[in-house]
Amino acid sequence: MATAIASIASRLRAILPADRVLDGPAALIPYAFDASFWSLRARRMPDVVVLPETTDEVAAIVRLAAQTGTPIVARGAGTGQAGGAVAARGGIVIAFAHMRRILAIDRTDLQCVTEPGIVYADLNATLAGHGLFFPPDPGSGRACTVGGMVANNASGPHAVKWGTTSAYVLGAEVVLADGTVIVTGGARSKALKSSSGIDLTKLFVGSEGTLGILTKLRLRVQPRPPARAVVLAAYDVLEDTVRALDDLFAAGILPATAELLDRSAVDALMKWRPDLDLPQGEAVLFIEIEGTKTSVSASVREVEAIVQRRATTTRLAEDEAAIQRLWAARGGLAAATALLFPGKHRIFAGEDLAVPISEIPRTVRRAREIGEETGVTVLFYGHFGDGNVHSGIVIDPEDPDEVRRADELADRLHRLAIEVGGTVTGEHGTGAVRAAYMRAEHGPALDVMRRVKRALDPQGLLNPGKLDLDPGKLDLEVPEG
Amino acid sequence: MATAIASIASRLRAILPADRVLDGPAALIPYAFDASFWSLRARRMPDVVVLPETTDEVAAIVRLAAQTGTPIVARGAGTGQAGGAVAARGGIVIAFAHMRRILAIDRTDLQCVTEPGIVYADLNATLAGHGLFFPPDPGSGRACTVGGMVANNASGPHAVKWGTTSAYVLGAEVVLADGTVIVTGGARSKALKSSSGIDLTKLFVGSEGTLGILTKLRLRVQPRPPARAVVLAAYDVLEDTVRALDDLFAAGILPATAELLDRSAVDALMKWRPDLDLPQGEAVLFIEIEGTKTSVSASVREVEAIVQRRATTTRLAEDEAAIQRLWAARGGLAAATALLFPGKHRIFAGEDLAVPISEIPRTVRRAREIGEETGVTVLFYGHFGDGNVHSGIVIDPEDPDEVRRADELADRLHRLAIEVGGTVTGEHGTGAVRAAYMRAEHGPALDVMRRVKRALDPQGLLNPGKLDLDPGKLDLEVPEG
Repeated sequence: MATAIASIASRLRAILPADRVLDGPAALIPYAFDASFWSLRARRMPDVVVLPETTDEVAAIVRLAAQTGTPIVARGAGTGQAGGAVAARGGIVIAFAHMRRILAIDRTDLQCVTEPGIVYADLNATLAGHGLFFPPDPGSGRACTVGGMVANNASGPHAVKWGTTSAYVLGAEVVLADGTVIVTGGARSKALKSSSGIDLTKLFVGSEGTLGILTKLRLRVQPRPPARAVVLAAYDVLEDTVRALDDLFAAGILPATAELLDRSAVDALMKWRPDLDLPQGEAVLFIEIEGTKTSVSASVREVEAIVQRRATTTRLAEDEAAIQRLWAARGGLAAATALLFPGKHRIFAGEDLAVPISEIPRTVRRAREIGEETGVTVLFYGHFGDGNVHSGIVIDPEDPDEVRRADELADRLHRLAIEVGGTVTGEHGTGAVRAAYMRAEHGPALDVMRRVKRALDPQGLLNPGKLDLDPGKLDLEVPEG
Repeated sequence: MATAIASIASRLRAILPADRVLDGPAALIPYAFDASFWSLRARRMPDVVVLPETTDEVAAIVRLAAQTGTPIVARGAGTGQAGGAVAARGGIVIAFAHMRRILAIDRTDLQCVTEPGIVYADLNATLAGHGLFFPPDPGSGRACTVGGMVANNASGPHAVKWGTTSAYVLGAEVVLADGTVIVTGGARSKALKSSSGIDLTKLFVGSEGTLGILTKLRLRVQPRPPARAVVLAAYDVLEDTVRALDDLFAAGILPATAELLDRSAVDALMKWRPDLDLPQGEAVLFIEIEGTKTSVSASVREVEAIVQRRATTTRLAEDEAAIQRLWAARGGLAAATALLFPGKHRIFAGEDLAVPISEIPRTVRRAREIGEETGVTVLFYGHFGDGNVHSGIVIDPEDPDEVRRADELADRLHRLAIEVGGTVTGEHGTGAVRAAYMRAEHGPALDVMRRVKRALDPQGLLNPGKLDLDPGKLDLEVPEG
């Protein structure tokens, strides 16, 4: 680094008020982690954290970083599970906690403009007042920021129908590696679609802060469906869930969600809350239908009639309280896990496979076997309707042997995903944790990613050590225990 | 150019059978044009046209072009309206007429793999047999290729609900400027979603052959809705169409289409086919609802009740024959125009504005005034639900003064789109015709597009003269008459 950190902090205080430049060790600690197990195992401290309030401040910070050769990492709420927002090589973390304004909401034009630091649930609460919603619904939606969602191309259960964050980003204000500010998707555009020029917006979506820093987001939003209903269906064998989903497709129906609970997850939930009275079977599906009240009422009965054919039991929930009870069961997995395995913790590692829908049964069966072979407890669930299989690894993180076996399990799960024609991450991002799999998954396309990276960040200062874009310098050494 | 064209043609004949290398002037003529008025006014002949059948052949052709410094232009059906598939600087045109196979269709996994030369309607006819469809429906769907759609991020009436082509491209095999072949979206992936690495797929979508040549496409497809219904609604004033659409949004309803016919288009249609009995008014909307039979039946009545509030007349079509009659009316604009203005032609210029929905009335009113000020006949219609306003300019292309006035009209329409917060092209692409507006629309983001271009095509051989990516060499001189 060309300039001492103390000097950089003092120069940052010329850009920002002193209380928005943090460099005391205690103040920095929260920024050394995200939700990944990787980040919990070795503290990776940033040298300075800054809390800008305007794009101009961000640009000035980035210019200083460029002049001094200092790494720079953008950070939302730190809910990521791949180390994406952790400063793998130190330097400056730009935290967006102070840039959380909604700048415009326009129902007629089906869009809004926000700063990146706004929390997903807060945005949707405000949009709801306008009859609108922003569809991608990550599991961490009550905490994660919209900027982080865009940086990771996040999604969740409803991506089956609505797609991922990428489909809803119309444009972005971006601070480039040299501090230049651009607006993608048209400098002053409020158009809902465009075929003009190269689509830079989608290039920045999912690039995890390695190509530029997002400072404003222009998002497509949707009319909020006023009604929904859920069909719960239990199946004797996993393969029947695939057949049931295909039955729906054959009838021309794409549900809003098709959530899968594997037997491992159902068992955990039933021990935690027997009153939920979840049906028994190798797998349970949660199928949600959205629309107007009359259309949902018509559709949900068609759906139930179709999924009944192969199910052992189905249950229909039409009133909002009953629907919320079902979703609470699905959402209770973390609590159930904590209760069932006292002294152990669910860790985030190898947790976000996405495979072809037809390969889900084979993937889950093989993954269970790998869990047994490594002697590690693991639950499976996921967003079945788009092939996203989540694994919940449960270990005692103080037990070095269990940690070693969990490492092996996570590694083998990642390789399994690629082997069955899937990806190591469906919605959580690559970050540092999955960088080592980029060559296996992408082959020579990785070299093109690196060319794009070099073109936009020739000094390699934007979020270094992520996505395998700067090979030979990867900070993935795993300390024991 | 480093090597004489005769020598390149003979070297191409070492790669491909002689009957798939065209260099006789008569054989080349069809490739000198697309549907743009720009291409009809001055013949831009390629030097050679090749018709490859495999990716290896395409790669060998591109390697030869790279070695000899020869421009290379990918071409689908030539239905484009912006000159994108016309060789603005000569060189080799790669025509994909022989690469039109469907390589895989998988309903359970909701995807298919095709070669780029397949015609959109042919793909959908085959998908229909599996209960599937590929949603983007460009107006040229019976002729255009899927490769061209991906290159231009094409769409059509149903993009209101389904989005544009970009949302459906999961991965692509791409031949790079040096002849290297990569696969984006995972080298062997069949995943439906991914957050792995930088999203190169979406970078190639819409880049019009300036960054690489598409040789295979992995596409997300959807269960085909088995039923639909259409509500036709007429309004006294344009502004009420915006209010009616917003009423639907407020009720949580996003229709599949919301097509607009401005009075100019309704008048033309009624003179052509009075039996269509279109309702009178400043504007008519076609609102289509899709789903299962029971859900459509429920929804369409809700929609009619809502749009009736502000409409002068509404009409409901539920049986397929009646629906097709209505769409035939919408599709009859070209025929109506030809009949009403004998000796004149509808030209494609300034034809693809997309503006914020709320700005459509102001845009159409101002556009009508510009038509009057320039003394040029122009009709307006479009995909109202996403702000896409098409203009149909009708002139005698042999009349130099009328051509000059049409040029002025098209130029002013493009500037108007940018001025009201829109884009010069919603779905047709930039090509050569709209390259001159890239700086005004994108500002400094254009420089980032150029950096990406240089990183992927340092010699500037891929579709030169398009998207303003190689400034100072643009072939936009307009010959008189």
